[in-house]
Amino acid sequence: MIVEKKIFEMPVLETLSGATIKQVRVGYETYGTLNADRSNAILICHFFSGTSHAAGRYAPEDVLPGYWDYLIGPGLAIDTDRYFVISSDTLTNLNAYDSTVTTTGPASIDPDTGKPYGMGFPLVTIGDFVRVQKALIDHLGISKLHTVMGPSMGGLQTYEWAASYPDMMDRIIPVISAANAGAWLIAWLDVWATPVRLDPNWRGGDYYGHPSPLEGLKQSLKIVTLQANHWQWANRIHGEAWAVDEVDPVQALANRYRIEAVLEGAAAPRAALSDANNFLYLIKANQSFIPGMGAGAKTAAEGLARIKARTLVLYAPTDQVFAAEWVRQTAKMIADAGTPVEMAEIEGEFGHLNGVMAMAPLGARIAAFLAR
Amino acid sequence: MIVEKKIFEMPVLETLSGATIKQVRVGYETYGTLNADRSNAILICHFFSGTSHAAGRYAPEDVLPGYWDYLIGPGLAIDTDRYFVISSDTLTNLNAYDSTVTTTGPASIDPDTGKPYGMGFPLVTIGDFVRVQKALIDHLGISKLHTVMGPSMGGLQTYEWAASYPDMMDRIIPVISAANAGAWLIAWLDVWATPVRLDPNWRGGDYYGHPSPLEGLKQSLKIVTLQANHWQWANRIHGEAWAVDEVDPVQALANRYRIEAVLEGAAAPRAALSDANNFLYLIKANQSFIPGMGAGAKTAAEGLARIKARTLVLYAPTDQVFAAEWVRQTAKMIADAGTPVEMAEIEGEFGHLNGVMAMAPLGARIAAFLAR
Repeated sequence: MIVEKKIFEMPVLETLSGATIKQVRVGYETYGTLNADRSNAILICHFFSGTSHAAGRYAPEDVLPGYWDYLIGPGLAIDTDRYFVISSDTLTNLNAYDSTVTTTGPASIDPDTGKPYGMGFPLVTIGDFVRVQKALIDHLGISKLHTVMGPSMGGLQTYEWAASYPDMMDRIIPVISAANAGAWLIAWLDVWATPVRLDPNWRGGDYYGHPSPLEGLKQSLKIVTLQANHWQWANRIHGEAWAVDEVDPVQALANRYRIEAVLEGAAAPRAALSDANNFLYLIKANQSFIPGMGAGAKTAAEGLARIKARTLVLYAPTDQVFAAEWVRQTAKMIADAGTPVEMAEIEGEFGHLNGVMAMAPLGARIAAFLAR
Repeated sequence: MIVEKKIFEMPVLETLSGATIKQVRVGYETYGTLNADRSNAILICHFFSGTSHAAGRYAPEDVLPGYWDYLIGPGLAIDTDRYFVISSDTLTNLNAYDSTVTTTGPASIDPDTGKPYGMGFPLVTIGDFVRVQKALIDHLGISKLHTVMGPSMGGLQTYEWAASYPDMMDRIIPVISAANAGAWLIAWLDVWATPVRLDPNWRGGDYYGHPSPLEGLKQSLKIVTLQANHWQWANRIHGEAWAVDEVDPVQALANRYRIEAVLEGAAAPRAALSDANNFLYLIKANQSFIPGMGAGAKTAAEGLARIKARTLVLYAPTDQVFAAEWVRQTAKMIADAGTPVEMAEIEGEFGHLNGVMAMAPLGARIAAFLAR
């Protein structure tokens, strides 16, 4: 499946906190065809470090397709012969320097000054991400979505959609996400931010035109990857294996184990395409999320009670970002308010990332839920 | 129970890797009385961020007693009317500037130069920690220990004792620890080290006589505390609670949630008493541990098979440092080699730290195991 990135632009976004942002631009992709009565649209919301590239390839020679490519396509669980699938980049997307990503955030040029916003960009929330998506859906002439779904932060956006616009979709599938972060995850998100803040090149966010805080961002992304994964995955690497043959980690403080080198090696190229301020803004957005915040909800229970869409909650029992027990509690709050909720577990060795990497066995369940 | 810190000095320590360290000094405490045939000595090994202060108070006005004070004392599970309990500071103890701690590590004065060793201090291992304890036990005239026990890194020392000196104790009680770190924990230990390394004041370890990397160390200790705990503990703090009333975290990037302030507030005074290089050396010692390393064991299975002491393994099902499944695997390896192993679970809301904070319900089990 060859896909094309498109750009959606809003002249002005008014954020939930009352700030205005001019010329908001986000990238989006679509797969399949919108039907005549515009009733077959499925919106996919991306995860924290993800992008709108949910499926397909931009060119046949692309090594990797979109992250849920094995779920989305002709004849697949999310069947593009039946459904019109939409996926958009969020505001303050992490991958600001990835040429396939279009986002508006601290790294974007402020049209009033011609310079990057930096810390002058207003703080934005998951509610604002969804407000931009709502404008995109309106722009596409769709008044009701068949389904809203997504993994992790994509699940938060899904809850926000269903709680703030409860009549705008028939179904939701939040994947590997509880209704909000809670104190534990708020603290871990702060840990993720710590290396960026410690990097002297960060300069309190004022680094545009200077060397960027690449080392801090690399270390931050290393932590994100590790926490989103699981020791079952790490066990593939023998614990005592050295990063470099003949260079014993016990001989010098700087000598590394292979797992340390693997994580740093994976983080380095990602950091080069990412913006440190966008990352910090994303963290704040995730910390502050309350489902239904766009409709004024003040607590998770209040927001979840607004949901009307039939709900399929998918979660990983080994998840160390959104613990299974929190997800079950979220599902219970939706069900307690009278909305039908189904649940299914995602197996795999990737912990939280099972919701990105290991969803294939859930394909039939998703297809059946979408068809009903 | 009023206790007194004593100092043990070795003129020279030869480390497992062949380095020599002169004038090694470590602090130790004892509780109870050594009996006539010197057969009632229990050695307690401390955890990563702990010290030899396992029980009692130095003065009646001390606010906090030693960490296992509720287990160790007259009539308690580890009954000082029956047993002579010994607890010593490890090499490169984290709390180098705590006046009650005596340790030898990078922050110590090199007798050859009159200046702190810094990165000139040789890397040391858990095997070296135990080698110093062995010299202390010899010095006290004890040829066989009744029991060796300890939580977390104290459990690693316990495995090391039992595997390297299998005839020197009758019983071991490793608490909240598996036989070695494995790739997953090696990677997390590297995450703990990351903030120190990013602090420009760290200067590659050469900061003595300069401002110390206090901010990095504080952030590192924040991560240690969080990972050693559990969301059941964090849930005491309502996720949406703000650090400062009227200062909304969604209004500015620097505005914090209460859980962030709580963790930073707890880490700051600890960082002031700790040394950043000692911390990094401790991390390396934990990453590189193999039980029986002092006797030349190359794998956990090889080391664990050397153990002869009756074994009681205590572990926390919610542990996120040493996962329950790893601990069970460790116990199985000991049992498979023919040594009797019992196991019991530690309940509580503190995750890994249940082994420090929530051991009271295990008191009777420990007392019975010690008496048999």
